[in-house]
Amino acid sequence: MKKKRIQELSSYFYEQLVTNTMPFWIDHATDREFGGFTTFLDRKGKILSTDKPMWVMSRITWVLARLYNELEKREQWLELARHGVDFIKKYGFDHDGRMFYAVTRDGRPLRKRRYLFTETFGVIALAEYARASGDAESLGLAKKLMNLIQDLYHRPGSLEPKVIPETLQTRGHSMAMIRINTLQVLRAADPKGKYNEQIDQAIDDVFTYFVKPDKKALLETVGFNGEYLGDLPEGRCIIPGHIIETAWFIMEEGKHRNDLELVKKAQPLLDWSLDLGWDDRYGGILYYIDVEGRQPIQLEWDMKLWWPHNEAIYGTLLAHFLTEEKQYLDWFEKIHGWAIKHFPDNEYGEWIGYLHRDGSIALDLKGNYFKGPFHLPRQQLYCHLLLKSLLEKAG
Amino acid sequence: MKKKRIQELSSYFYEQLVTNTMPFWIDHATDREFGGFTTFLDRKGKILSTDKPMWVMSRITWVLARLYNELEKREQWLELARHGVDFIKKYGFDHDGRMFYAVTRDGRPLRKRRYLFTETFGVIALAEYARASGDAESLGLAKKLMNLIQDLYHRPGSLEPKVIPETLQTRGHSMAMIRINTLQVLRAADPKGKYNEQIDQAIDDVFTYFVKPDKKALLETVGFNGEYLGDLPEGRCIIPGHIIETAWFIMEEGKHRNDLELVKKAQPLLDWSLDLGWDDRYGGILYYIDVEGRQPIQLEWDMKLWWPHNEAIYGTLLAHFLTEEKQYLDWFEKIHGWAIKHFPDNEYGEWIGYLHRDGSIALDLKGNYFKGPFHLPRQQLYCHLLLKSLLEKAG
Repeated sequence: MKKKRIQELSSYFYEQLVTNTMPFWIDHATDREFGGFTTFLDRKGKILSTDKPMWVMSRITWVLARLYNELEKREQWLELARHGVDFIKKYGFDHDGRMFYAVTRDGRPLRKRRYLFTETFGVIALAEYARASGDAESLGLAKKLMNLIQDLYHRPGSLEPKVIPETLQTRGHSMAMIRINTLQVLRAADPKGKYNEQIDQAIDDVFTYFVKPDKKALLETVGFNGEYLGDLPEGRCIIPGHIIETAWFIMEEGKHRNDLELVKKAQPLLDWSLDLGWDDRYGGILYYIDVEGRQPIQLEWDMKLWWPHNEAIYGTLLAHFLTEEKQYLDWFEKIHGWAIKHFPDNEYGEWIGYLHRDGSIALDLKGNYFKGPFHLPRQQLYCHLLLKSLLEKAG
Repeated sequence: MKKKRIQELSSYFYEQLVTNTMPFWIDHATDREFGGFTTFLDRKGKILSTDKPMWVMSRITWVLARLYNELEKREQWLELARHGVDFIKKYGFDHDGRMFYAVTRDGRPLRKRRYLFTETFGVIALAEYARASGDAESLGLAKKLMNLIQDLYHRPGSLEPKVIPETLQTRGHSMAMIRINTLQVLRAADPKGKYNEQIDQAIDDVFTYFVKPDKKALLETVGFNGEYLGDLPEGRCIIPGHIIETAWFIMEEGKHRNDLELVKKAQPLLDWSLDLGWDDRYGGILYYIDVEGRQPIQLEWDMKLWWPHNEAIYGTLLAHFLTEEKQYLDWFEKIHGWAIKHFPDNEYGEWIGYLHRDGSIALDLKGNYFKGPFHLPRQQLYCHLLLKSLLEKAG
């Protein structure tokens, strides 16, 4: 990438992040009456649901603390991260140490799910805030929560299964991939802790169970011992954006350890997903693919979602600078170009989350149980920081 | 409707039903190896998943028995209905008398859900087969299952709630509406039984809790006492196709009892749903609507699904012949015209189930956990029978 382009993009991501993405959420979502954030917003930033999804509560808290730790020491970001942590500590936890999936605006518990994703986002919120503030209690809580996650994850049967286990036991890619990133965030907040072994183990899980080189694919769901469940749509299911996210988590680990072999190991995951996921017809990345080319069963399979594009923008940029391969730069420009043409909401700020296959708007809401300030600001922050470090190195 | 058009349509529905819809399923789904039906099929009728969804297993069984009871005494239909009932009896039930939501191809249980819908479809399969065959055991099982449904339905807390009940207790329209139809089918199989009171009670539930004349809407979800949950997307959620189905269930009850007041009572439900649901931009009926005109949160909200169109085709035709109002005939021709232009699969038979808003194909599968031989053959059968009875009356 030419220096001029690096400078241009570095400024672009910074400006978008601090003058568009973050102000949208800070202005519209900060709940000074009941605490925490009301992130379930419509296009204009008005409340669409008073429910407070705890995935998103934790993720906005992480983003704010991360900005403070990595971008600038703005007091507002630290104060708002504390505002989020206060709500999480007060209303986020059940008596058994697990977290609620959603609570009411005033913090009463609505739903708890059988999956551990809320807890993984709880860890990154608490850990990043501890790193920003030096608050030992938050770090302690993050570590305790991570231990609970690891314990439940490694004890099959400890969580209520979706499918009757006497008939079918499966493994999902998500819990392997999310532990990599969660442990990476916790390690940064707890430099004395020993996390590399756990990260190695999570990466091993990905390659042992889910990566199938003969199919050129990372499968979302496999049998308990990694068996290919080819008779079932879930066994053939590929989520390109998800794999791209896993790939760059592993590449970040290679970067952190200065281990190019780990980067190389993750490259095929990125390559397969870009080839499979890119929509030659309308551009953009398809949401679900069947590895055998059959009809995916998800009604939204051909929609273009904001988050796979964010993951692919940072993933390809990171891959380019770690491997120096031109193909990743080409992919970056192609995906970034398509994304900023279709997703940004030029009228009300932030990004539209859900487009039809042809790029037209399907839903114009800004937040729901899954969408909130996470994939977009993380992408903008990480792209900016990567490009800035290159400019600094170049002198 | 002119006599010529009645004749033309009566033949059209009959032909489509017996030479297209039913052969697709009978040829591709009958499982002579493991019993029952493999209904999770792709466009061509090849197995997309070996899972056997028990909603669909029960519904195909009901359709086959209904055809035998109402259309023609074809031995094949009766034999295949028995084939379905055998599988349901052998593999469909858990020890507590409830049914499994899905089983493997060879009948091992995969999932049981907190909702009672599988059981309601089990009732109609067993009852309709009992009516066709005179099998007392099947009728007994259907009655026992209906009692279980009514018991669990009327005992709040007997089923594991989705939302923590100390925080929020809600009621869903589905269980009120589906009981009307389930009881109607059971009544036809058990003429000595007393069902009218239970049907009245289910209809009362619809109007007491869910119908909101000031909003010109029937809401899918309300508070336990019918409160409007306007702060939540689920509280503002309208499913036009679902309401239209409820409306014609109630109109059928009016027809059965020769009670025009009941028909009139259901008319506003049909009127509101057609007005709200029809897509002026591309034609067809939208899947989800927010009653306050805000963005629905379902990713598939603007898709055109086969089933709401089937319900609207029969609902408007029935309404026209019961009320003699021309507006319903106009709606019938408009909806039917749009549907048969977009949904039929002229290459492989049956209907495409899922279209984008603009009418292009989104998913071309023929079966999944919800789609199977039910809404389409029921619509074709009921339309044909209604038109045939008019021709017979006219002499």
